[in-house]
Amino acid sequence: MLVVMKALATPEQIHAVCEYIEQLGFRAHPLPGAQRTAIGITGNKGEVERGNLEDLSGVAEVIRVSKAYKLASRDVKEEDTVIHFPGTDASIGGRDLAIVAGPCSIENRDQAFEIAELVAAAGAQFFRGGAYKPRTSPYAFQGLGLEALRIMGEIRERYGLRIVTEAIDNESLELVAEWADVIQIGARNMQNFSLLKKAGKLRKPVLLKRGLSATLEEFLMSAEYIMSEGNYQVILCERGVRTFADHTRNTLDLSIVPAVQRVSHLPILVDPSHGTGKRDSVLPMGRAAVATGCDGILVEVHNHPEKALSDGPQSIYPDQFVRMMDELEQIAPVVARRLPRGIHVPAAAD
Amino acid sequence: MLVVMKALATPEQIHAVCEYIEQLGFRAHPLPGAQRTAIGITGNKGEVERGNLEDLSGVAEVIRVSKAYKLASRDVKEEDTVIHFPGTDASIGGRDLAIVAGPCSIENRDQAFEIAELVAAAGAQFFRGGAYKPRTSPYAFQGLGLEALRIMGEIRERYGLRIVTEAIDNESLELVAEWADVIQIGARNMQNFSLLKKAGKLRKPVLLKRGLSATLEEFLMSAEYIMSEGNYQVILCERGVRTFADHTRNTLDLSIVPAVQRVSHLPILVDPSHGTGKRDSVLPMGRAAVATGCDGILVEVHNHPEKALSDGPQSIYPDQFVRMMDELEQIAPVVARRLPRGIHVPAAAD
Amino acid sequence: MLVVMKALATPEQIHAVCEYIEQLGFRAHPLPGAQRTAIGITGNKGEVERGNLEDLSGVAEVIRVSKAYKLASRDVKEEDTVIHFPGTDASIGGRDLAIVAGPCSIENRDQAFEIAELVAAAGAQFFRGGAYKPRTSPYAFQGLGLEALRIMGEIRERYGLRIVTEAIDNESLELVAEWADVIQIGARNMQNFSLLKKAGKLRKPVLLKRGLSATLEEFLMSAEYIMSEGNYQVILCERGVRTFADHTRNTLDLSIVPAVQRVSHLPILVDPSHGTGKRDSVLPMGRAAVATGCDGILVEVHNHPEKALSDGPQSIYPDQFVRMMDELEQIAPVVARRLPRGIHVPAAAD
Amino acid sequence: MLVVMKALATPEQIHAVCEYIEQLGFRAHPLPGAQRTAIGITGNKGEVERGNLEDLSGVAEVIRVSKAYKLASRDVKEEDTVIHFPGTDASIGGRDLAIVAGPCSIENRDQAFEIAELVAAAGAQFFRGGAYKPRTSPYAFQGLGLEALRIMGEIRERYGLRIVTEAIDNESLELVAEWADVIQIGARNMQNFSLLKKAGKLRKPVLLKRGLSATLEEFLMSAEYIMSEGNYQVILCERGVRTFADHTRNTLDLSIVPAVQRVSHLPILVDPSHGTGKRDSVLPMGRAAVATGCDGILVEVHNHPEKALSDGPQSIYPDQFVRMMDELEQIAPVVARRLPRGIHVPAAAD
Repeated sequence: MLVVMKALATPEQIHAVCEYIEQLGFRAHPLPGAQRTAIGITGNKGEVERGNLEDLSGVAEVIRVSKAYKLASRDVKEEDTVIHFPGTDASIGGRDLAIVAGPCSIENRDQAFEIAELVAAAGAQFFRGGAYKPRTSPYAFQGLGLEALRIMGEIRERYGLRIVTEAIDNESLELVAEWADVIQIGARNMQNFSLLKKAGKLRKPVLLKRGLSATLEEFLMSAEYIMSEGNYQVILCERGVRTFADHTRNTLDLSIVPAVQRVSHLPILVDPSHGTGKRDSVLPMGRAAVATGCDGILVEVHNHPEKALSDGPQSIYPDQFVRMMDELEQIAPVVARRLPRGIHVPAAAD
Repeated sequence: MLVVMKALATPEQIHAVCEYIEQLGFRAHPLPGAQRTAIGITGNKGEVERGNLEDLSGVAEVIRVSKAYKLASRDVKEEDTVIHFPGTDASIGGRDLAIVAGPCSIENRDQAFEIAELVAAAGAQFFRGGAYKPRTSPYAFQGLGLEALRIMGEIRERYGLRIVTEAIDNESLELVAEWADVIQIGARNMQNFSLLKKAGKLRKPVLLKRGLSATLEEFLMSAEYIMSEGNYQVILCERGVRTFADHTRNTLDLSIVPAVQRVSHLPILVDPSHGTGKRDSVLPMGRAAVATGCDGILVEVHNHPEKALSDGPQSIYPDQFVRMMDELEQIAPVVARRLPRGIHVPAAAD
Repeated sequence: MLVVMKALATPEQIHAVCEYIEQLGFRAHPLPGAQRTAIGITGNKGEVERGNLEDLSGVAEVIRVSKAYKLASRDVKEEDTVIHFPGTDASIGGRDLAIVAGPCSIENRDQAFEIAELVAAAGAQFFRGGAYKPRTSPYAFQGLGLEALRIMGEIRERYGLRIVTEAIDNESLELVAEWADVIQIGARNMQNFSLLKKAGKLRKPVLLKRGLSATLEEFLMSAEYIMSEGNYQVILCERGVRTFADHTRNTLDLSIVPAVQRVSHLPILVDPSHGTGKRDSVLPMGRAAVATGCDGILVEVHNHPEKALSDGPQSIYPDQFVRMMDELEQIAPVVARRLPRGIHVPAAAD
Repeated sequence: MLVVMKALATPEQIHAVCEYIEQLGFRAHPLPGAQRTAIGITGNKGEVERGNLEDLSGVAEVIRVSKAYKLASRDVKEEDTVIHFPGTDASIGGRDLAIVAGPCSIENRDQAFEIAELVAAAGAQFFRGGAYKPRTSPYAFQGLGLEALRIMGEIRERYGLRIVTEAIDNESLELVAEWADVIQIGARNMQNFSLLKKAGKLRKPVLLKRGLSATLEEFLMSAEYIMSEGNYQVILCERGVRTFADHTRNTLDLSIVPAVQRVSHLPILVDPSHGTGKRDSVLPMGRAAVATGCDGILVEVHNHPEKALSDGPQSIYPDQFVRMMDELEQIAPVVARRLPRGIHVPAAAD
């Protein structure tokens, strides 16, 4: 159920409607748009009486939302969600493409700084690096944990790069929320509903990766789990799905970009590194991703991919990253986008 | 790496080898077999020197295990793993088929007891019922939680049925471990490695469901996560994978049964309810599962499927369950199995 | 559109309705059932006026068939289709299970006879052997063609076994129709509509294998292509579909058996050899297939699988086939079936 | 097996090597490159003695080709294959992007001409239109056949557009070869080996669409079937594969573009219309396709998509096609391509 407020509704009227909804035992989610505010109602099973709501002051209409996802739906919020990073000119979901680059794992301070310097110089605004790694094998390198978070904290300080890193459970979630700018939830945890709810209680942007066999609806329902707890800063990310095809590690499903944009207001990024698992395919698929009109890409860059502790075969070389940035810059205007070069952080900002 | 002890090796010799391994900074996992004991070594990356180990007293040979999974592998333990339920004649993995039956969710005490009485009367030894439900939608019924566990505790008391129920996160894991006989880890959490590790620290059997797009190797690697923490009582469960086919909710991949049996010693059950999502297909596929030679089945039974709060369309009616038991009893001998009827719990047992 | 005749409708009335339909420019397909005859109408796009038909003598009702397939639908013909082999006691689709066994390819006369003798002795009624092989590579063995058909003709003569063999194009279709008892159309040709239509013009049973990525509806639509040309003797065959799973060559989708039986009257067999591609899985999955309630199985048997010119790894040994027959015989009664042993051909029959 | 000739080998030497190969009972396929000629040998199973070949005059080296495809492999021919259309400036596989546009089916002369005029005006060089339609249902519109071919012949005459249309069997193949410039073989016939061989005997370019569940190797093996008969003018085309994802009709697997380019010299186009089945996705995925670096696209354009007899929902409007051409023109230079506008046919050319 969705209550659409009149264009001129006052903050007081909006507040009153929310209070009324909460008194009925439901949850109210005010969603301010450029034109007018909508208020999503969750926790109901259709039993809210529409009549009473429509009588409240400032209410334009009450819409029954048929789709299983509500808060993630464009029906509820028509304008694209843009996520801003306070104290910087970086954003995800607006006109500027977001480029998130870095190594699969933070292996040590030198490696991380070297790569961070390279990607910052090439113009990236976001740095990614794994501190906690969900590995298929219990015997594989599982990440440096807090040490990696601290290294990325230094990188943030030094280069201004905003940090994107994955949380894999409650413990790591708290630490990641403390140190990073964007909390990544990986494909294998896309339906770890307990983790999603906890991330929903935080007030940091969450980058949610599509599960290996998730339908569009399931993907948005997982975003809904986060949003239903009050955290509306969700960024979707396509990273390949599992099919019979064996020429890539996964099959990058770029067609989900226009599909998401049709039904949801949330930004969507694409990860051509995990999506293909092959270095040679990263540049072609990165260009293709931007050409679909997505909001940016995640890409693994390594100074010595052949020695990487994880995902070496899919990490691109620094010079490939520089070339990729040049190519994306040329494609961006075709889809009414711009590739920002470097992040601007006023001296006293953070 | 695997150390195979001589047939006549003494407990002291075995202990000494384990200590030596632990001193090197690795973990030792003694795996007693009918003939001889093997000791799995984990935590190494090939750097253990074989020579030193082979010189230890009682050691027959040292084998380099090439597969990514070790403890789950039949190379490490040739005999089938049989899980016994102390104080009862129930087991999983041996000659007797394990039938785990009950509603998708525990909805209330009356419903649970009514179904439990029915399945107990028909001869099931295990009762399943969801207390914590991983639901695609945050707005769907999420289970009664602790209240459901308590109801199942009473059912256990009354009918002797051993309880199988799902844990979805750390909190529910502790409670489920306390109240249930088998901790279920669902398909969506098959690669929730943090949860797997925690389940590995417990000493209760874990029923691990195959993820919707998990390969055989990934499935066994997830079992390995649990085992690498010292809990060797892992039961695998096929419950359908995701394909293009749309005549069933998932595609039940029965061919994984012989494939698992070839490479692993762990027992494997099949869930034809989730595996097909259609009531009409549950009996045919349940029969088929037993005919492959699996160790038993999980099946959803409901007294009023049309009113079930979850998974109604795939729950069978009580009389269908009775018929299914009769059919499985006839098929069992063809695969050298037996269908036990009812669980035997000596008066003072629990 | 389907015209259901009254139970007591005369042949003349049925004929008159057919003539009327044909005059309107459509095709009439009389489908005699145990109780009454139905007449399928094809070639229309909903424009037949129901009123006029209902006024004709002997007509009980006119049903608009919503599904895309009509003639293959159980709505049109409620009773199971049983295909008889004149001059023998063999049948497909009735109480008796059909076992179709033999080598992937006919390699030479000696090999074919040796295997035929073995499978006949074990009680099979149908012999399969490839004369024309659709091979992925143009450089692989493509079959002996007419020579193979002649060898199978001799086998038919000698052992009474009815012959099932594949046609891959128009040329081979004519020859196969001449020499074989059942014309097989392979998975790769399931949507070779031109070939389907030509097979539909013949009056020999057609065994149609499911395509590697065919949905249930597409599978039945391909059967419909054959039936819409007047050949109603179609036998469906599940042989595995393509998924991400890599422990078998294909994923045998046994759940299509109850799904087909729900919506169609056509018989359905299962091929566990192609469906798994692994010898070790053929017996378990063959048992499972029969346990679902299918109408029989196709299985590759070879006297020297390790030397087979094609599909060696999935062909079972003669002694495995004997064991399989014994196992299937035991499972058959559970699904109200019977495993006939050997084919009965009266001396003067053929 | 591949014989690589010296850079300065004479035509006579090449001819002599071919003759020698044929005398041994194999087939020789001279493949002229920019630097030197290679001669592929097919029909052998490794038994050609390398020594004898290496002794022949003009031979540089003899290479054993391990991959199952030979003639389609880049090992055999390093330079990209470029297909020219005599009497015009059109080509497929070179610097110029090939845009193939038109309706799914030719419905009548007016419709075809109207669309042809539109796409010619927007700058397309190739016109596509179905004369023979492989339809899932036998009751669906099957195409106008020869009449459609004649209409396209007129369109070719009037607008200079080169014609691409599908052949579905032997009969239509001959007619299509007579009337069209490129013979299309559809996804459902990708493994109709009989049809592939017949197309291989012709000397017209063949556009081979990837099957719905074809691996890269199978796709190239089907190209090999055509090439092994002597027709080297094969154009590959990605058109979506079948997966669990339901937000598009098929999942367009763009990552096959760089994968094909790595191992094969054949040109590859992309069909975003069939690949997505949704009009809204055609432009985004068309842009993405070109951004990967493919050789062009096939796109369905219709003047009245809502009234189209087939595939209406995926056909774009004429003004969308114009916009698409403008967008592709901007992306082309990023991948070192050029979008030609209009076809140049000298007055007396054809």
